[in-house]
Order: sequence, then C-alpha cells, then structure tokens
Amino acid sequence: MTKKWVYLFEEGNAKMRDLLGGKGAGLAEMTNLGLPVPPGFTCTTEACLEYLNNNNTLPEGLWEQVLEGMDKLGKKMGRKFGDPSNPLLVSVRSGAKFSMPGMMDTILNLGLNDESVHALAAKADERFAWDAYRRLVQMFSKVVLDVEGHLFEEIISRIKQEQGVKTDPEISAAGWQKAVAEFKAVTKRETGIDFPQDPWKQLQLAIEAVFKSWNGKRAVDYRNATGISHKLGTAVNVQAMVFGNVGNDSGSGVAFTRNPSTGEKDFFGEYLFNAQGEDVVSGARTPTEVHKLKDEAPAAWEALMNVARILEQHYREMQDMEFTIENGKLYMLQTRNGKRTAAAAVKIAVDMVNEGLITKEEAVSRIEHFQIDQLLHPRFDPEALKKAVKLTKGLNASPGAAVGEVYFDADTAEKKAKEEGKAVVLVRPETTPDDVHGMLAAKGILTQHGGATSHAAVVARQLGKPCVAGAEEIKIDLKARQFTVKGVTIKEGDVISVDGATGEVYQGAIPTVAPNFDEQTDLKTILEWADQIRKLQVWANADDPQQAARARSYGAQGIGLCRTEHMFLGERTEKFQEAILAETPEEFDRVLNEVLLPLQREDFYGIFKVMDGLPVIIRLLDPPLHEFLPSQIELTEEVARMEGAGQTNTPEYAKKKKLLAAVNNMHEFNPMLGLRGCRLGIVMPGLNKMQVRAIFEAACDAAKEGVVVKPEVMIPLTSHVNELKHIQPLLEEVAEQVMAEKGIRVEYKFGTMIEVPRAALTAGEIATVAQFFSFGTNDLTQMTFGISRDDAERKFLLRYADEGDLNILPKNPFQTLDEEGVGKLIFMAVQDGRKTRPDLEVGICGEHGGDPASIDLCHRAGLNYVSCSPFRVPIARLSAAHAAIKNR
Amino acid sequence: MTKKWVYLFEEGNAKMRDLLGGKGAGLAEMTNLGLPVPPGFTCTTEACLEYLNNNNTLPEGLWEQVLEGMDKLGKKMGRKFGDPSNPLLVSVRSGAKFSMPGMMDTILNLGLNDESVHALAAKADERFAWDAYRRLVQMFSKVVLDVEGHLFEEIISRIKQEQGVKTDPEISAAGWQKAVAEFKAVTKRETGIDFPQDPWKQLQLAIEAVFKSWNGKRAVDYRNATGISHKLGTAVNVQAMVFGNVGNDSGSGVAFTRNPSTGEKDFFGEYLFNAQGEDVVSGARTPTEVHKLKDEAPAAWEALMNVARILEQHYREMQDMEFTIENGKLYMLQTRNGKRTAAAAVKIAVDMVNEGLITKEEAVSRIEHFQIDQLLHPRFDPEALKKAVKLTKGLNASPGAAVGEVYFDADTAEKKAKEEGKAVVLVRPETTPDDVHGMLAAKGILTQHGGATSHAAVVARQLGKPCVAGAEEIKIDLKARQFTVKGVTIKEGDVISVDGATGEVYQGAIPTVAPNFDEQTDLKTILEWADQIRKLQVWANADDPQQAARARSYGAQGIGLCRTEHMFLGERTEKFQEAILAETPEEFDRVLNEVLLPLQREDFYGIFKVMDGLPVIIRLLDPPLHEFLPSQIELTEEVARMEGAGQTNTPEYAKKKKLLAAVNNMHEFNPMLGLRGCRLGIVMPGLNKMQVRAIFEAACDAAKEGVVVKPEVMIPLTSHVNELKHIQPLLEEVAEQVMAEKGIRVEYKFGTMIEVPRAALTAGEIATVAQFFSFGTNDLTQMTFGISRDDAERKFLLRYADEGDLNILPKNPFQTLDEEGVGKLIFMAVQDGRKTRPDLEVGICGEHGGDPASIDLCHRAGLNYVSCSPFRVPIARLSAAHAAIKNR
Repeated sequence: MTKKWVYLFEEGNAKMRDLLGGKGAGLAEMTNLGLPVPPGFTCTTEACLEYLNNNNTLPEGLWEQVLEGMDKLGKKMGRKFGDPSNPLLVSVRSGAKFSMPGMMDTILNLGLNDESVHALAAKADERFAWDAYRRLVQMFSKVVLDVEGHLFEEIISRIKQEQGVKTDPEISAAGWQKAVAEFKAVTKRETGIDFPQDPWKQLQLAIEAVFKSWNGKRAVDYRNATGISHKLGTAVNVQAMVFGNVGNDSGSGVAFTRNPSTGEKDFFGEYLFNAQGEDVVSGARTPTEVHKLKDEAPAAWEALMNVARILEQHYREMQDMEFTIENGKLYMLQTRNGKRTAAAAVKIAVDMVNEGLITKEEAVSRIEHFQIDQLLHPRFDPEALKKAVKLTKGLNASPGAAVGEVYFDADTAEKKAKEEGKAVVLVRPETTPDDVHGMLAAKGILTQHGGATSHAAVVARQLGKPCVAGAEEIKIDLKARQFTVKGVTIKEGDVISVDGATGEVYQGAIPTVAPNFDEQTDLKTILEWADQIRKLQVWANADDPQQAARARSYGAQGIGLCRTEHMFLGERTEKFQEAILAETPEEFDRVLNEVLLPLQREDFYGIFKVMDGLPVIIRLLDPPLHEFLPSQIELTEEVARMEGAGQTNTPEYAKKKKLLAAVNNMHEFNPMLGLRGCRLGIVMPGLNKMQVRAIFEAACDAAKEGVVVKPEVMIPLTSHVNELKHIQPLLEEVAEQVMAEKGIRVEYKFGTMIEVPRAALTAGEIATVAQFFSFGTNDLTQMTFGISRDDAERKFLLRYADEGDLNILPKNPFQTLDEEGVGKLIFMAVQDGRKTRPDLEVGICGEHGGDPASIDLCHRAGLNYVSCSPFRVPIARLSAAHAAIKNR
Repeated sequence: MTKKWVYLFEEGNAKMRDLLGGKGAGLAEMTNLGLPVPPGFTCTTEACLEYLNNNNTLPEGLWEQVLEGMDKLGKKMGRKFGDPSNPLLVSVRSGAKFSMPGMMDTILNLGLNDESVHALAAKADERFAWDAYRRLVQMFSKVVLDVEGHLFEEIISRIKQEQGVKTDPEISAAGWQKAVAEFKAVTKRETGIDFPQDPWKQLQLAIEAVFKSWNGKRAVDYRNATGISHKLGTAVNVQAMVFGNVGNDSGSGVAFTRNPSTGEKDFFGEYLFNAQGEDVVSGARTPTEVHKLKDEAPAAWEALMNVARILEQHYREMQDMEFTIENGKLYMLQTRNGKRTAAAAVKIAVDMVNEGLITKEEAVSRIEHFQIDQLLHPRFDPEALKKAVKLTKGLNASPGAAVGEVYFDADTAEKKAKEEGKAVVLVRPETTPDDVHGMLAAKGILTQHGGATSHAAVVARQLGKPCVAGAEEIKIDLKARQFTVKGVTIKEGDVISVDGATGEVYQGAIPTVAPNFDEQTDLKTILEWADQIRKLQVWANADDPQQAARARSYGAQGIGLCRTEHMFLGERTEKFQEAILAETPEEFDRVLNEVLLPLQREDFYGIFKVMDGLPVIIRLLDPPLHEFLPSQIELTEEVARMEGAGQTNTPEYAKKKKLLAAVNNMHEFNPMLGLRGCRLGIVMPGLNKMQVRAIFEAACDAAKEGVVVKPEVMIPLTSHVNELKHIQPLLEEVAEQVMAEKGIRVEYKFGTMIEVPRAALTAGEIATVAQFFSFGTNDLTQMTFGISRDDAERKFLLRYADEGDLNILPKNPFQTLDEEGVGKLIFMAVQDGRKTRPDLEVGICGEHGGDPASIDLCHRAGLNYVSCSPFRVPIARLSAAHAAIKNR
C-alpha cells in the first residue's frame, strides 16, 4: 500500500490544515457544506516534504493518485483532461498551513495547448480562448521555467499600443493569439525549452513547481520574518477551472464577511468584472467595490450573501473569501479566517460575543498581544497635524503613524534601516512578494496603486505596519528616485509622515502622542473580560505621579516599582553630589535630610494620592553613588589637559582635581556588582533612613487627608538574609517613629528585590524577614548569565540571539525570560519563599514584566503580579489572561 | 527537686567536659583512675550560664549543694572549712570546655583569715602561713574586687628592698605578715571594702567571680579570636589545697608526656621548688627542667612517671599535666591533652600509630589542616642567614619564621597590624592574657623572660605564631620603646626577624624560602595515610612546568587548571597586543599563529612532560582582550596631557591616540561580565583554534617521546549549552587534524568551567556536550552573590565578613564556599550533570579548592577532585581525608 498523497475535496475537512493546507482544507469544508465549489483535489503537504527530501522526486504512487483524481474530476465535469476537442482545464494552486499571501505560486488554465485552444474557442469565444491560453503560457513560463515576468508585460504593452487600446480587456482575439506566439518564442529563447504541449506534462511540472516554491527565496524570507516553521511544506490544489473572464456577466472577487480594517459588520470586498482572480489580487487593475454586484448581478449577490452567512456561522470567525462568477453563476474558490487590523480584531471579537457567536474567553483568546501594542501605538499629534503640509490622501490600508525617510526599492530601504538604523518609509507604485523584506524593514508603506485588498494592504495589516495604498495623486519616478505630488517633489532620503488610519501623507516629520485609551471602548471591553479570566495582577513601574496616573488609567492595580534614583537626577543632582562628596557621614546625612528629604517626600506624596487604595512599592536607592558624579574618564581628560597646558594654578583646576580624587576613590571595576543596593544602605544607613522617613511622612500626610495609602518599602540587591536582618529593623524603626510623630498609622510592608542569584537560591531564608519578593529580572538575568547587558548587546549578544548569525540563544534573554536558567531560579524562589511565608507577596518588576512569554512563565510560577511600564499594562492584562487560559 | 549543680570529682568522668569543663572532667577521670588527686568538686557550666542569665544570681540550690560538697571534702581531709583552729583551705579555679590558658581566674588558699592564719602557722610554719595568706588577699582582691595587680607587686618589691633580698622565697614571715596588712589596706582604699574574714563569704564571692570571668573582656576577646562559642559557660572547681611552697621537699610543676615542641617521646616539663603552680605558669620565676626531680625527689619522680604512663595509655594522647609535690608526696591538679606545635603533632601521631596506641585514621584525624600550613610555612633562606646579623638566641618556643616591625605593647602592635597593615613582631618582657590581642595581630613574638611552658610559649604554639621566649640577653626599655642587645639598639618600628624553630633573632628582614617537603618524613607518612582514606583526588593549579613539578612533588594527581592567559604576559604582551590591534580577523589569526603558537606549544610541552601519566586541564584564554592593552585611564591622561601641551604633531601622539581609540572601543562597563571566555572564542574562533593546535602539537610531540599525555581542554565561561555546541566541534576538529598531521593519537577530553550560575542551573544540558566540569568558584561566587571581589573587599566585604563590624556573612565567601547559595548550585550541577553523563569528571579549580571547609563540601557533593595551588596540595590531601572520615 502506498501512502495516500491525494485527497478529493469531499474527502477532507477544515481540521486537516496540517495535511491539506489552509486553502485545501477550506475548499474541502465548503464542498462538504454543499457550497458551490468547482471539483478538485489536494496533493498533501506530506507529499511536498517527501518530494523535497528526496531530491525533488515525486513520491511513489503520487502520480497514479493524481491520475485517478483527474479522472474523477473529469467525470464530474463531463470533460477529459488532454482531450483536444473538449478539454478539461484546471488550476494548480499552492496552499500551506498558514497563509503566505502571494508568496507561492499559482498556474491557471492548465490543459490548453495549440490544439485544444481551438476547441475552447469554438465552445466559448475566440478572444477568451486565446486570452486563457496566453495566461497559461505566461504563468507557466514564469512559475515553472523562471522566465522574468516583465518580458511578457512588455509584449502586452506593445500589442496594446499596436491595437491602440489602453486596457487588457480591450485586446482582441488576434492580439492575444499574437501574444501566445510571442510568449512561446520568448520562453524558448530564454530557456531553450518549448512550452510543453502535453497537458499531463504541464500538470506534472506545475505540481512540482509549487512543491519547489516552498523553498523559494521569497517564501523562506517570509517565513523567517513571520516565524512560520520551515518544516510544514505546502499542499497543491488541483481544481477544475471556472472563468470570470468570459464576459461581463462574469468576474472575480475577494471579499470579507466584515470590514477587515475597522471590524464593522459590513460585507466588504472588491470585484473585477470580466476578470480572473489573479487580476484582483495583483493590484494591477483597480477593482470596483463588491457591493456593485447587488445591482449588476443580483442573483449572484444573493448567493454570495448566503454563502457568507453560512461560512461565518460555521467557522464562527470573519471569513476572507475568493470567488468567481461565471456567466452569472457563483463559484467559491477559497475561504479562510480573514486577516484584520488590530482595531478590527478587537471590534469583531466584541461584536461576535454580543451576537452570541463566541464566548468572552474565545474573544480574549483571539486578540494577540501585538495587536494591543498596535492599538496603543502613538498617533500623530492633532495639534501638529493642523500645521502640517498634507501631500495627499490615499486608502487607509493599515492603521498607525509612521515617520521616515523615503526609499523607493525594498533593498535600499532594508539596507538603510538595518545597517544605518534609519527610520524608513517604503514608497512603491505597488508591492509584490519580492518587496516584503523592504516592508518588514520599513516603519510604513505608501503605494501609488492598489486597493484595500492589494498585496501592500494585506501584508501591511498582517505585519502591523502603517500603510497608505492607492495614493494615485503621487507620481513616482523610480529612475529619478523621487515622487511628486501637488507640485512638491519628495526625493529619496526626504522625510514624510504616513497616517495609515486616515490615509493621509504629510511632508516632514510630525510628532506623535500617546493614543487616547479611554476612547477605545472595544479594547477596554476585551481587557475587562481578560481581567475576569486572569489570575495574575498587573501592576506598573512608575517613578512619578504622572506615570502612576497613566498606569492607573490603563488598569494597573498597583505600583510594582518606583525607582527613587530618578528622583536624584536633574536639578537635584548637584545637591546630591554635595552629599556624596561630604567629608563625613554626618555631613552626608545632613545634606540628605535638609535638602533632599523634603523633595522626596513631595514625590511620594503625589504618587500615594494618585494610587489611593492601591499598593505602592518604593525601591530604596539602588545604583552606586559614583553614577551621580561626573565620568571618571572625562574628568581625567580635563585635568590632564589642564596639566599639559600648565593651568594648574587656577581654582577650576583645584576643584576638578579634588573631584577627580573623589571619583577615583569611588571607582569600581564592575560597578554592577559593586557598592550599590542594600550594600550601600548598610554601609551608609543614613541614606535609606532618609528615604524611609520621606516615604512615611508622605504616607501619613496623605492618610490624614483620607487617602488610603499602602506603602511597601523594597530593599534592593539582597544576597544574604543577614543583610535584611541588619537593615530592615533600622528602617522599620524609622517608619514607626514617623507614624508616632504624625499620630497616624498606615498599613505597610518591607520586602526585597530578588535580583541576585543567591537571593533566589536562599529565598526560604530571605522570606523569614522579607514580607514580599519582587524579581528584578534585569539584574537577575545579567548575573545568572554572567552578562553585562550594556556591554554585551553591542559586543556579542545581538549576534548570539534572535536574528544574530551565531544562533546561540533562542531569544534575547533581556526581552523574554530565560526559562531554563533564570526561570528555574524564579520557580525555586517562589516555592521556597512561600514554604517559609505562605502569604508572601511575589511579583516581577524587571522589563520582562511586560513581555507575553515571560508573563506566561510568571503565571506558571504562581506570582501574584507582574509589574511593567504603564504603556505595557494593557498588553500585560491580555497576556495574563492568555496565560490563564493556556495553562488551565 | 532542684537541679544537680555540683559534682564531686568521683561523680564525674572525662566525657563530661560540656558540663564539668576540661579541668573538672580531667580531675574526675584521674580521681576514678585512682590517681592522687586532692578531693574536690565542680560547679557545672550550667550553673554558670544560669547565674549569668539571671542577672548574676546564684541558681537555686547551688549554695546548698556547695555546702554539702564542702562538708564531704572536709571529712575526707579531716578538717573543716572555716574552722579557725584547723582550717580546711581550698582553691577555686575556672575550667571551661575548651582550654583558654590564663584567660579566666583562679584563687588559692581560700579559708584563711586573720584568725586561722595563726592556726596554719602553728601547724606548718610561720612564713608559709603568711605567704599563703598574702597570696589569698592578693588574688582575691585582684580577681573578685578588681584591684590592679601592680599595686601589690609594688609592695612586694618594696619589702624585698627593705629586707635586702632579691626573690620572693627569701622574704621572711614578718615580711609577708607586713605584706598582708598593707594588701588589705590597699584593697580597702581602692574598693572601700574590707577583705572578707568570713571564709564562706570568700568562697561564695570567689565562685561568682569565676562565673563572671566568663564574660570578662579577656575571655570574650580570646573566644572571638579562637572561634570558641560564647554560649558554653565555665565550670568552677573547688579543691582542697595542697602546698608546693612548704619547703624544699615541695614544689609545683607543669609537664608534658612528650615534647610539645618537637614531639619526641621524652618527658618534658618545668618545675619550681618550693612554689605554687601559679608561679610556674606566670613566667615570673624561671623554673628548672623537670628531670631535676629524678635526683632531687626520686620517689615523687617515680610516682610522676607512673601517673604519666597511666594517663597517656588511658587517654591515648599526649598529656599536659599540672602537679604539686607537698612534702615529697605527689598530687595531680590537672591533666588534659597537650597543645603542641605542628611538627610535634605530626611526629606524635605517627609515633603513636607505630606504638600501637592509635589507628592510622585517628592519626590523620588528629592533625589539623592549619598545622600542615605551619609545617609548610616559609623558613628563612639559609644563604641569607649566613650574612644576617644575629641579635640573640632564646628558647625556640613556637616554630616558624616571622619578619616584622618591633612594637612593645599589644595595643600598638594590634593597631599597626590592623589599621596600617604592617607586619609586626610583638616584643614583651613576658606576656599575660592581656597581651593576646597583640599576639594575634603579630607575625611573631619575642619575650625576654619565661620558659617553654610560659604564657607566651603556650599561646604562641596554639596560635601557630613563631615565638622566641626567654631571650634573656635582650634588655627591654618599655619607656624608651626599644631594646638593646650586644650593643645594638632596636627601636620601635625597626624590623627584626624571629626564627621560632631555632630561637634565633636577627636584625632586619631576612628573605624566606619554601620548606623542603621531602625532608618532612612524618608529614609525608601522615599524608600517605590520608591518601588511603580520602575519596577526593587532589589536583593542582599550575601555569608552567616549574609549578607543575612542585605540585607533583607535593602529591598532586593532575593539573586541574593551567591558565593560558599568563602565557600572554611578560615579553609576549607586545606580540599579543599586535594581534589584538590587528585591523582584520585574518591579521589577528596570522600574528597568533606565526608568533604565539610556537611559544604556547613549548609551554604545554614542558607541562606534559612533568605530568607524565597524569591529566592536565588547560583552560582556553579567559580574560577580555583589553586586559592585555594599556589602561584606558592612563592613556586618556597621557593623550589629554599632550593635547594640553600642544604636542599633537608628534608621531608619539598619533600612536597613542590610535591606541586610545582601540582601547575605548574595547572598553566595557563590567568587564567581568563582558566579552571574555568562550564568548571571545566564539566571536574570534582563531584564538582558541591556535591554542588547541598548540596543545595538541605539544601533546603529540611529547607522546612520540613516550610521555603519557592526557590533555583536557577546558572552555571557560559557558552560560548556555549552545555555546559549547558551537565552539567545541570546531576545536575538536583542530585536535583531530593535528593528530592526523603528527600521525599519533592521544587520549583527550573537552569540557567546561562551571562558573556562571546559569551553567550550574542547566548542567544537565551542558553535560550533553562537555565531558568534564570544573567549578570556577571564584567567578561562580562573584556572580551568585553579585559581588565583584576586587571592588567589594575594599568597599564593604571585609566589613561584611569574618571579623568585620557588620557581621553579615559568617565567612568570606571567597575563602570558604558559601554552602547555602554557591554550594546549592554545585550540588545541583553535579547531580544534573551526572544524570546526563554518569562518568562525568567533576572538579573544582577556584581558590576554594585548597580550603578545608570547602573541600568537605566538595566531598559531600561527590566531586572527583579538588584542584588548588601547589602549596596547598598537602593541606588538601589531609582535608579530603578528614572529609571522608567526617562524612562516613
């Protein structure tokens, strides 16, 4: 028994995407739903992999199964493949598990040859037959024989000129017949091969070409960019042809059951009369709005509406369909879950819950974290827009605000972005799969031609890149590397701003502002549903009242990290330097208490007020003191230069020399592992005491006004429980003293960062003193890996991780928690800590707190909360719900 | 029932040291062995603790039990305590679990008062009675009432002057009677208290004073210095007095069953005729050699020899005894295991095995690691000694070579050593317990007076400090802060050299050399026995053939770490810099291969020859490259100075400027966590390839000459298994290639350091590639604690650990492995690594490899070997045996 390599559409179903690819599974499902699908069969992805793994040899038995399938197909259609008098024509289309728009290959009208074209002409009409044949020769030569497409386009252009017409449909039968002859000559000239007249040869080569296209450069690049596995393979769908180009009662269309850009429940799509499907997708002819069908072909429209209803109810998802109308009759050629913008995704999910189609949990599951990111991406500042120079307005193909230098080809755009780190906007007449690497590298995309379902629009939406398509006003001159619009010339390298949400394009760079979260009601609904599902609380890192307010408006349930070092910067640096350079610890403390205490108290007071009722974790000063002094290198240079110039008698020199001595004395070889965190607090307790006093004075003052304050004091960089045993009682004493002075008590906790590996390893001990843990995963990752992030990213880490050439680390561990190493420590620490103190509050405040994969780990480790930057709070809320669902 | 606070000697035994203290347990054991011990009883350590914990209140029932004991004691002696006509006199002596020589208090002759002194005079003689009484008043006043001792000494000096005599024994009865009167007056004047006439009052106060002495400053300091727990308490021994000072057929002595300095089996001790025991120990009178008794008091001598035999057989240990002869009859007042020098400890252990007294394992157990250290301490260079200025020769009281500045009081000595980091020799007329802090701080001790069992000698031996005692030729002038000898004056701060092994003292600093291990046959015997017991192998860290040879002579079984970076220093730095500054990787590799490869090959060849038959682990280059370039700060300074001086047109400037640019480019903020170890190897593979080539060329060359080579290539700083997967195959390929070129194969391994926490956490994964692990515990400790050692020791670590004031870390984790944190990682890594690869070879090559406590941990973790510096190999051999015994 040979393996089953071929499935008739009626043998498959929607669940068989792995084996039949997305298109094949969709066709099978529609067939079994009784929808009008031209008959056909699918060669499996397994067949593809087998073919590729065996040096491009068709697997044993495949061809026999194809022959059998063609036989059944012919019987259904009442024609026969290769019959010169009544030829069965088929399409051959790729279809992988995950959609890769335009990445792989399609050939239509297989079965025609010099003989059967006449039979077709006799049955239908002359012009249609020769058009069909020339399409076959053109596509076959491009796809199977690698002939460059522009050679054919040039011939068509010439024929149009000769015939004095402007569009393809106007070309006469004779024109297409001439084209066929010239196409065949070009193919012969370019490849030395005659276009095969044997239909079975055509079919075999076409199937093989689709298999091979899986490993084509375009497809590999696309998969690399989008994270699709290279091991899936593609299926091949062989299907009886139906023709949208047999007259004006025919045509082809692409449609979505809802609007993929806004999510409105409004049938949405485009249609080209008298055209085959490829004409719509390519963007070469601008199609009409699909609703036109309602009037022009009401029966077909009715049928289409019916199919759309059935499919959406059946799949419980917005569908993206391809269809052809042949002489007024509807045929479905594809259905799949439709790609959509982030805004549409959110609206559709909410609507479908309201319609009773899906559950809230399904709705939450369907939103991906990066979509939230897109929704909360900055938009152009409305004030700045008022004064901006608007160049044009095109289709709002993919929302978002992009600013960048204009480049007119994908290679240059990629180079400028990757090698020179430039923000780039890719501007093209239209895009093709060959442009995807440039689109990936660009901040935004602008095309002159193409509609809302053109390649540029579809891919941009999928990639989440702002895109304005079909901005027909702009005139691109690729040779001169510029475009002109309304008398303005934009040259390569000039900066423009592209608003994919409105379709507007502006000259120059327009500043952006944070989006208005409150207006995004659907998003807020989704996040409220997520809140009902998730187990993890979401807190935020905020260093001042403004940040805290934003965090709270985004749904933060507490402040997980308030970094006090930022409060010593700016205008306060000079004062703090005075303290650091004090000659005695007493002088140090005096400056702190007289100058910095009131300022700190004010900082904390503001945060407590904003966070009324919610916990606020304040970390005591963490960095080494020398970070607040001038750089050792720069001072050394200045002093030496003055010495070289003999300027050693100036007071300036004396001052710098003295400062340098202090800086040298404080210098550390590895400051990250030096005198900082609680070590500093232990060696100079006055510093931390001042901070604790400021915290509790502020807390008591706010509490007196009726604010519910929940201060939690966090001691950084603990490596041994004895450090806490030493410092914590001193600080608790200050807290108690302040509350006694103020005559009011507030609820409070003392706890510690777990950011040193040893703290994680001895968490059980540390929890005897600490009332809460907060994983400082930035430092914990640095120390667990032995990698200094600042040094490493430049020197080797970017080569180690992600897209680096060395392939050592699956992900950059500073972005996504390293589960095997750092994660192991986190799991241990949570377990051991809770063994000692069952009600231990455990969270994470490193940057990983906003990373979805890391949030999943935190959920599994049983943390109480994740804390992230205010802007990441919505993503964290969603991701925490995803983690709860996934790990249920 | 009240608790039993008091044990008669016959109620105790040697095992009750916790409760009865060392002295009490010894007296009990001797009593039960039927040896001549004056009757008495012991108040327990529990009574002491109870007393101290209850605000210095005698525990309930204690006094009643004392009364009962005194009653029984009196009946045995046929006298009664407090009986004015036939008084029972007793001594009250402290006795803790661990000997604290002279640290606590003793009072003799309790029971005498103004009345009973006459009865005693009538029964014995007048002079003896008044001498005894003045001793009581003197000791009681000092110990119980805190009167300063010199006040009494001054009175005695004056009386001697008045009587025209030179020594105490010459003072007449009237003289002592006068002394008693004056002593009592001094006590009254100084304290306002009359010397108590009630013997029971005397007894009670004396017992309490001993209890209190446990918390006296001297005792606390001593315990801090020697690591004795503060929670033990001291027992109090109350014993009937016998008198060594009733005439010339009486006396007191201290003796060892073997020579405590050399270990020779030769009864050894000192004796003072007509004296009480305190006179011997104090060092104030120079005693005679104990053998004199043989002629002077043959019966007592015979009895003493008999007791010594019985005790040594009974305890199976060299004994240190105190005894008194009263009118020719021997009384034993104490026995305990004798303290001894390292050399004596080793000799006695070996001898006792040969005598069949103890087993080899017991012998090994009895040697402490620091004794090996002492035996292998440097000694003065014999060549240098020939030219040295010898000042004098005293008693060789405690062996070892010390060089330091002379200071004449303990406080100054301690200050100079601790605060200024000076090497100090403490020079004193004689030492007392008050001098111990100075002895601890000193490198060596020199005393003018006192014998081989004087305080200075005993304590110095215990502390392992070189000591010359009784150098009577030197004349110390404490006021002038100098001593003179043979016309030479040595002032405070001048440097002398003290040879405790010969008793010789030299002017100036004499260089030292390593000791001759081969001559230390007893030590070698002990270590061979240790080798039979231990499970851990002992390897050594050696970077060149000389070090390897020394390591092998000390018994190393392999090289656990050959650091190749040292091979790029010295003359080769310039060449290596040329490579580092190469403009291209190819140029870098070229310099390496043409210039450095032959040199490295030669290094390795020498080591392989020395280590014939044993494994040699060679670590590939570990430090960051910028360590081989000039300092960034210095270069910045030089360049800026030239710029300030306008010297920018010189070629010198251009060169420095270029070098500075390169140095700046390579600068790292935290170089310890930067581009080093295998990261460097991965980014610049040519470097490691060159090293592997050099290793295998050398190995093959040596193998061709018949040397059995076992190279093991160690890849440093692995944090992810993928690093090994990347680099190891490249290097193995080089190895195979070289062996093919040379036409000979050698046995080899590739493995990795485990020095990054993540490597330990993912050891199971790493062992899929690495064939061996070596814990680099220096870096592992740094990263696990998040402490940069170079920075930290100066800034806070010394305050955190050991004798620091902050008391955060029990031990400096860079000296002794931190069991809870770093140790946890080690245990995990061994377990996980062996789960993957059961025959995984695991060792340790950090500095901890030579630390006994860390070796114990390594034994328990199941390591195959420890690797340490060559000089530590003997200690490691012993410690590994101790670990095997302890954890059996």
